[in-house]
Amino acid sequence: MNRLAKVILSASRKGNLTNIGLASTLARSMSSGGLSKYNFESLAVTSPQEFIYKVEVNRPEKRNAMNKTFWREMVECFNTIATDEDCRVVLLTGAGKTFSAGIDLQDNAELMQGAIPGSTDLDVSRIAYKLRSKIKEYQESFFVIEKCPKPVIAAVQGACLGGGLCMISGCDIRLCTEDAWFQIKETELGLAADVGVLQWLPKKTSNDSLLRELCFTARKFDSSEAKELGLISRLYPDQEAMMGGAMELAATIASKSPVAMQGTKVNLNYSRDHTVAESFEYIATWNAAHLQTEDLAKAVMASMTKSKAEFSKL
Amino acid sequence: MNRLAKVILSASRKGNLTNIGLASTLARSMSSGGLSKYNFESLAVTSPQEFIYKVEVNRPEKRNAMNKTFWREMVECFNTIATDEDCRVVLLTGAGKTFSAGIDLQDNAELMQGAIPGSTDLDVSRIAYKLRSKIKEYQESFFVIEKCPKPVIAAVQGACLGGGLCMISGCDIRLCTEDAWFQIKETELGLAADVGVLQWLPKKTSNDSLLRELCFTARKFDSSEAKELGLISRLYPDQEAMMGGAMELAATIASKSPVAMQGTKVNLNYSRDHTVAESFEYIATWNAAHLQTEDLAKAVMASMTKSKAEFSKL
Amino acid sequence: MNRLAKVILSASRKGNLTNIGLASTLARSMSSGGLSKYNFESLAVTSPQEFIYKVEVNRPEKRNAMNKTFWREMVECFNTIATDEDCRVVLLTGAGKTFSAGIDLQDNAELMQGAIPGSTDLDVSRIAYKLRSKIKEYQESFFVIEKCPKPVIAAVQGACLGGGLCMISGCDIRLCTEDAWFQIKETELGLAADVGVLQWLPKKTSNDSLLRELCFTARKFDSSEAKELGLISRLYPDQEAMMGGAMELAATIASKSPVAMQGTKVNLNYSRDHTVAESFEYIATWNAAHLQTEDLAKAVMASMTKSKAEFSKL
Amino acid sequence: MNRLAKVILSASRKGNLTNIGLASTLARSMSSGGLSKYNFESLAVTSPQEFIYKVEVNRPEKRNAMNKTFWREMVECFNTIATDEDCRVVLLTGAGKTFSAGIDLQDNAELMQGAIPGSTDLDVSRIAYKLRSKIKEYQESFFVIEKCPKPVIAAVQGACLGGGLCMISGCDIRLCTEDAWFQIKETELGLAADVGVLQWLPKKTSNDSLLRELCFTARKFDSSEAKELGLISRLYPDQEAMMGGAMELAATIASKSPVAMQGTKVNLNYSRDHTVAESFEYIATWNAAHLQTEDLAKAVMASMTKSKAEFSKL
Amino acid sequence: MNRLAKVILSASRKGNLTNIGLASTLARSMSSGGLSKYNFESLAVTSPQEFIYKVEVNRPEKRNAMNKTFWREMVECFNTIATDEDCRVVLLTGAGKTFSAGIDLQDNAELMQGAIPGSTDLDVSRIAYKLRSKIKEYQESFFVIEKCPKPVIAAVQGACLGGGLCMISGCDIRLCTEDAWFQIKETELGLAADVGVLQWLPKKTSNDSLLRELCFTARKFDSSEAKELGLISRLYPDQEAMMGGAMELAATIASKSPVAMQGTKVNLNYSRDHTVAESFEYIATWNAAHLQTEDLAKAVMASMTKSKAEFSKL
Amino acid sequence: MNRLAKVILSASRKGNLTNIGLASTLARSMSSGGLSKYNFESLAVTSPQEFIYKVEVNRPEKRNAMNKTFWREMVECFNTIATDEDCRVVLLTGAGKTFSAGIDLQDNAELMQGAIPGSTDLDVSRIAYKLRSKIKEYQESFFVIEKCPKPVIAAVQGACLGGGLCMISGCDIRLCTEDAWFQIKETELGLAADVGVLQWLPKKTSNDSLLRELCFTARKFDSSEAKELGLISRLYPDQEAMMGGAMELAATIASKSPVAMQGTKVNLNYSRDHTVAESFEYIATWNAAHLQTEDLAKAVMASMTKSKAEFSKL
Repeated sequence: MNRLAKVILSASRKGNLTNIGLASTLARSMSSGGLSKYNFESLAVTSPQEFIYKVEVNRPEKRNAMNKTFWREMVECFNTIATDEDCRVVLLTGAGKTFSAGIDLQDNAELMQGAIPGSTDLDVSRIAYKLRSKIKEYQESFFVIEKCPKPVIAAVQGACLGGGLCMISGCDIRLCTEDAWFQIKETELGLAADVGVLQWLPKKTSNDSLLRELCFTARKFDSSEAKELGLISRLYPDQEAMMGGAMELAATIASKSPVAMQGTKVNLNYSRDHTVAESFEYIATWNAAHLQTEDLAKAVMASMTKSKAEFSKL
Repeated sequence: MNRLAKVILSASRKGNLTNIGLASTLARSMSSGGLSKYNFESLAVTSPQEFIYKVEVNRPEKRNAMNKTFWREMVECFNTIATDEDCRVVLLTGAGKTFSAGIDLQDNAELMQGAIPGSTDLDVSRIAYKLRSKIKEYQESFFVIEKCPKPVIAAVQGACLGGGLCMISGCDIRLCTEDAWFQIKETELGLAADVGVLQWLPKKTSNDSLLRELCFTARKFDSSEAKELGLISRLYPDQEAMMGGAMELAATIASKSPVAMQGTKVNLNYSRDHTVAESFEYIATWNAAHLQTEDLAKAVMASMTKSKAEFSKL
Repeated sequence: MNRLAKVILSASRKGNLTNIGLASTLARSMSSGGLSKYNFESLAVTSPQEFIYKVEVNRPEKRNAMNKTFWREMVECFNTIATDEDCRVVLLTGAGKTFSAGIDLQDNAELMQGAIPGSTDLDVSRIAYKLRSKIKEYQESFFVIEKCPKPVIAAVQGACLGGGLCMISGCDIRLCTEDAWFQIKETELGLAADVGVLQWLPKKTSNDSLLRELCFTARKFDSSEAKELGLISRLYPDQEAMMGGAMELAATIASKSPVAMQGTKVNLNYSRDHTVAESFEYIATWNAAHLQTEDLAKAVMASMTKSKAEFSKL
Repeated sequence: MNRLAKVILSASRKGNLTNIGLASTLARSMSSGGLSKYNFESLAVTSPQEFIYKVEVNRPEKRNAMNKTFWREMVECFNTIATDEDCRVVLLTGAGKTFSAGIDLQDNAELMQGAIPGSTDLDVSRIAYKLRSKIKEYQESFFVIEKCPKPVIAAVQGACLGGGLCMISGCDIRLCTEDAWFQIKETELGLAADVGVLQWLPKKTSNDSLLRELCFTARKFDSSEAKELGLISRLYPDQEAMMGGAMELAATIASKSPVAMQGTKVNLNYSRDHTVAESFEYIATWNAAHLQTEDLAKAVMASMTKSKAEFSKL
Repeated sequence: MNRLAKVILSASRKGNLTNIGLASTLARSMSSGGLSKYNFESLAVTSPQEFIYKVEVNRPEKRNAMNKTFWREMVECFNTIATDEDCRVVLLTGAGKTFSAGIDLQDNAELMQGAIPGSTDLDVSRIAYKLRSKIKEYQESFFVIEKCPKPVIAAVQGACLGGGLCMISGCDIRLCTEDAWFQIKETELGLAADVGVLQWLPKKTSNDSLLRELCFTARKFDSSEAKELGLISRLYPDQEAMMGGAMELAATIASKSPVAMQGTKVNLNYSRDHTVAESFEYIATWNAAHLQTEDLAKAVMASMTKSKAEFSKL
Repeated sequence: MNRLAKVILSASRKGNLTNIGLASTLARSMSSGGLSKYNFESLAVTSPQEFIYKVEVNRPEKRNAMNKTFWREMVECFNTIATDEDCRVVLLTGAGKTFSAGIDLQDNAELMQGAIPGSTDLDVSRIAYKLRSKIKEYQESFFVIEKCPKPVIAAVQGACLGGGLCMISGCDIRLCTEDAWFQIKETELGLAADVGVLQWLPKKTSNDSLLRELCFTARKFDSSEAKELGLISRLYPDQEAMMGGAMELAATIASKSPVAMQGTKVNLNYSRDHTVAESFEYIATWNAAHLQTEDLAKAVMASMTKSKAEFSKL
């Protein structure tokens, strides 16, 4: 945590962070403990600033590889955040120098067993049945990121491989350091990626030809190619700068009406998956309730008077 | 209009406009009046050249903010254009230095009233019901752009905010000046954008992460970031150059078979919203009639003889 | 074939090709004949290396224009490849200096006849009926590329027009030489493109505004604009370099588990056309069987030991 | 009108109509004029009872055949009803002994002209273009029934052919007299039905085999076969009894919360066209606003105290 | 064939067959041979009357069980019929006393082999891959019935089990004798039905609870329960009566405009699988061409003059 | 429990229950306790026979009204059943004389509070947000029935109102006693039904006109009208007979391959919500794994030898 404190302090000093709340934030993020209802083994959850939560994959000694505990805790964590009124935006990071090495093959041996001929007496169909359940369970671990109505910002440093890439595919905003690198590793392991990358990226990126090359070949690609692909929206010289930038972004989001913010996320997801006509119909029904919010008047007033609005919790 | 005349003349002199018809065009666009059946208060509709219509949001004194008259007239205007045989392509612009400041909050107070607690005795459900109708009405004002089968080119100068950005999202081609700037302003006003930007852009742009950042933060972005996002296809040094370029583009489109052109627009829209298999099925049914057009022979002949084809009205 | 040999040899000498198998490949691709079950008139099918097939549009004297034989043979060719266990990846190229000039208007006169008023006594409805069948037949010629579960790499040199562009739109990966140029020629011929470009590209590219401009105006665009559009993922200085690069890419793909590869292609296609939730559901059902493959263990083992895995045919 | 008055009086005397409001209703329906804002030539619109509107196709001398005026007025009529707070339920009937003979071929000659070879010099494609617009216009005449959020009850006597059947297909509830008969007449006239019957009935009826037989053969079928098909829900011995029953039904609907009623119609339509999961999602968003209605408390209270609730207009 | 001749003759004598063409029909159906381009082993194809084809599953000695030849020939047969201008309607029957006993387990052993543990050394994934291809191949054998644009009438006598039931599920109209019986046999054989019954029937029948009971339990059900389920539209006392009724139905269909008929089938299929709004859009595009048919004028004229129209082939 | 015991005993004596396992079953269902991992307050879960579970809504003193505990326990119960290998089929019943009176208004006051004006100071938008979550939570309580891959049979006696009707709408098979009655009660309470009836029934029943009448009017309907509507597949003279019939049905289902059974349910659900083409694609992928089951051989063998197959757990 010390490191982040320095990052923010430093960025703050350089005047990069205009948000006045950062000073108090610092204190909080430096405090020893996380948030009481977020006690996880594989994840560290803290609140560096009011309304901003930081979820950190916290197995640096394993390069944040995803073990069974992780898959389970992700669901619990993001489902809790989904209705936690103290959180308006999430920063998703990885502890240490590697964002995530992807699935922890040893710990997930169970998943692999079906693949080893002779490892079980079970009927093929029954293995298939179990595998399908297991895959769906793992998919849920990342799908909760999308289903959580609060914006989630992924900040990637170092390597981001396999499951790591699937995880950030489900996030709203993706930032990385210049020396970050990526690998859609699944074909190298003999499987088609089934927890996100093939499902989200065809609809989120800019060059289907490049995306397919990366999926088929499993070759590594660096941050600038990731930006060219439209996977990443912003590069930062180093992790400090990135965390500073991410915090600034999060602070802006946290300062706005949560009604507006969550409506925006829900409807962006909806629009991606439906026709334009259906998306119009859906948001008209959505906003029939949400234009009645007091936030509208508060926000308009604040906008006119250049002041800061205080929005009730949501 | 004088200004446009100069723009075109100037562009023409520089040899930027190869289309020979521009001379006569000039005369028409300089003539005092607009088109007789397009008498609007908030929109000025003219025909700068045969088959090309220019629709100009015409409230420069209000930075082309969208008032109630505007929302209504847009529907009437584009529904008329949709079946007006004299129009093959539309140029959508804004009068003055600002493309559009978005919704005119004062004039649309009615829409806002629901948001102010205590402003009405009406039942929440009944307000919701009315708001939904009103939102659908406003959505229609921009959806008519997409439903009109003729290509619509937006030419953006200065600021393009909120509703302005929603409006161009529904256009086919988006051009801007280098000093143009954009803002997805809705979250700043306490609402999720409900008239286009969240509905169209996830399917029209290149970097979902960047798009979401812009939607969530409501920060301003300039023309080069707009181009990087895939929102804009072409930048021009200034408004004159842009209008020249837009006219040239429009003239090329107007010179082609309207059967081909409208079929292309209808099917691009269809394909975006359906599977590839369904899109193949749809255009096969569409072209079953339209390959029988005389335009095919005319166009092929013209292409072979390097001459200009004259196509009947459609 | 000699030319390709040189290309590869040269690339190989420069150390660009790391894949050790290329030496033997050379011999094969230099051998006179194609593959025995692929005897086509308009297509030349060879196997330059184990598991890699090269399909070459082979009418260089007609700039690889697509005649009736071509439309029929494409279906036969790719349907055969779909279940040919000796093929894991396809390289699609054009013989000579032009990738493809598109539809061969003379040879396809039949398709055009309906367009010439007075050319037939048939009822409009009956012509429409036949045209629809014919269009669907032609669509199938390119749709087989997508339905074939093996990755297909298009390598484009020189001109790629009309039907040529539709054909590559259906491929997985698109490469080209720097001097390649493209044209969505259909509107110039008086029709809306009905064999792929309007169906695939809205979902595969990055800038809808630019795509529409190119569709409407039928103007030529060069390789760098093609890359900007997200149509092409990689440019090469010349055809030799491109073929070298394409072979290297193909070799990487061919070296991986075909179970992983085909699952990846099938699911990328599926995800593009369905919601994220449906795509998760589909791949869970797909992988319920395919995670039971022996390839998983082989691949993981190879990955750990940095050795090369041998996968059974599929 | 006299006739209906008798029907209702008679039914009322027999005690069939329990709703106490019918007495005053009588006076209103017997009054000479219709509703002031519903001045139509082909339709007679009256309000036989508070919140109940009766829309009567009113060309008995032409067996209520649908002429051009009719197609236009239907759109205007139902779009007005959609937001008319005085209307909560619509009774759709036909004046005289025949419900409707369907399209008025003479009056719609325009639509037919395209079908007569040599009747025009226009290009096939241009005719197709116009026909498509015209068909969409006619479709809208019946689609407005579905889009109007108030329940629409069709009461059918005598013949109900072609367009007449399409019209009732778009209604919510269909009643008929025992001597009513039906005919999906379009194939007999050389066309596929394009204004409703093929679009709605596959999703509203019970026996696809029977439906297809009726569509293909255009044979007449009587009321009991219509009931077996699931097209009709209730038969009445004669028109008097039917109108009495329809009024009773309408009165029940009119007595309930309009918030509940319109939400029910909108969501039944939505569910028919979407997956169960999407339908759940949609109504959750819908009811997020509408469960906040005061009607809920009023209705629950009334239900508990066996009293009649008064609901505000909607 | 003799048998059918007697059936028709007999029905004709009883005055059941009003269609005057049946006399000549008789002669044709009694003639020795089938249609020259329909030479199949498992199917007998004849034309009992102009424009009517009869396709008979022709393995009576095996109770019309479906062997490998059958699966292949169905595709060939119906694809040929799809574009055979001499056919406007198809009668699908089974030779002998049993309509069809379903899949021929012995002959399809290949399909079963994967199910027998230890029967192969192949990788699970590779077997899955092959099975999926095989299933798709078999599905195509029945899907061609739906894709063929001509109405297909199934006439069922005796037993109709498993694959037999799947086959008729894909037909347009289903008739049977009173002593016919049915069985969705697949669960009894340890599998979920994958060639039609689970895919078509939820959208074609009337009682989901009953359908599921029949699918889960695999119990036999008789003709009257089949009618109650909405699977069958008409029962006949015996096979003669049924064939007479089927011929009469076919003759009515054959006498009508093929443009109207095929448009009706294509659009009924489309509507079942799309929203009402999309179905309106599709038929508007379809009829844009097909309302230009000369058949419209011919049919209207014939309808007015009570004469019989002659329609050109389609 | 005693009651059920008598029912089964009695049915068994009459020879209605052919399944030999029923004797031992009796003992189990008469035993005092339920299944150890199913300890619920509002539900009683027992296993009356091997592989058959009975879930009984167990608040007879409240006419099985649905309280908050119930909504939560349903999710837990069916999610556990979904992967409980000892369960192959579920019988869903209500304790006492009433199947279910629907939502327990008193206990769910929380849900109602938003509806009472002035009952809270919360912002409309924030209430909407909470209501949407709450509705989704309640929907899940019934959606788990559909998502559970094991067939669920509802056996209804007495009244089945509101939420009760929604609950059975999500079941696979619906049986009832002759004196059962139903009511879609929601409009009477001032709301549109949001937990199932409007979502499932339009796709499961036979007469859209009748369904809408019942939804709009909230009138009671008896068992025979429920059968006519296609809601119920079977009526029984009394509860004993019904429970006997239900057990017999359940026993048949339990005796079959669970691979076949669950595949059948999953695919019936899928087909209802997708096009026929997509449903074919899905089951081909599904059966690619599941045709490899050993159950296929076991079942075929048992079928041939008229013996009973023993299937491994799933």
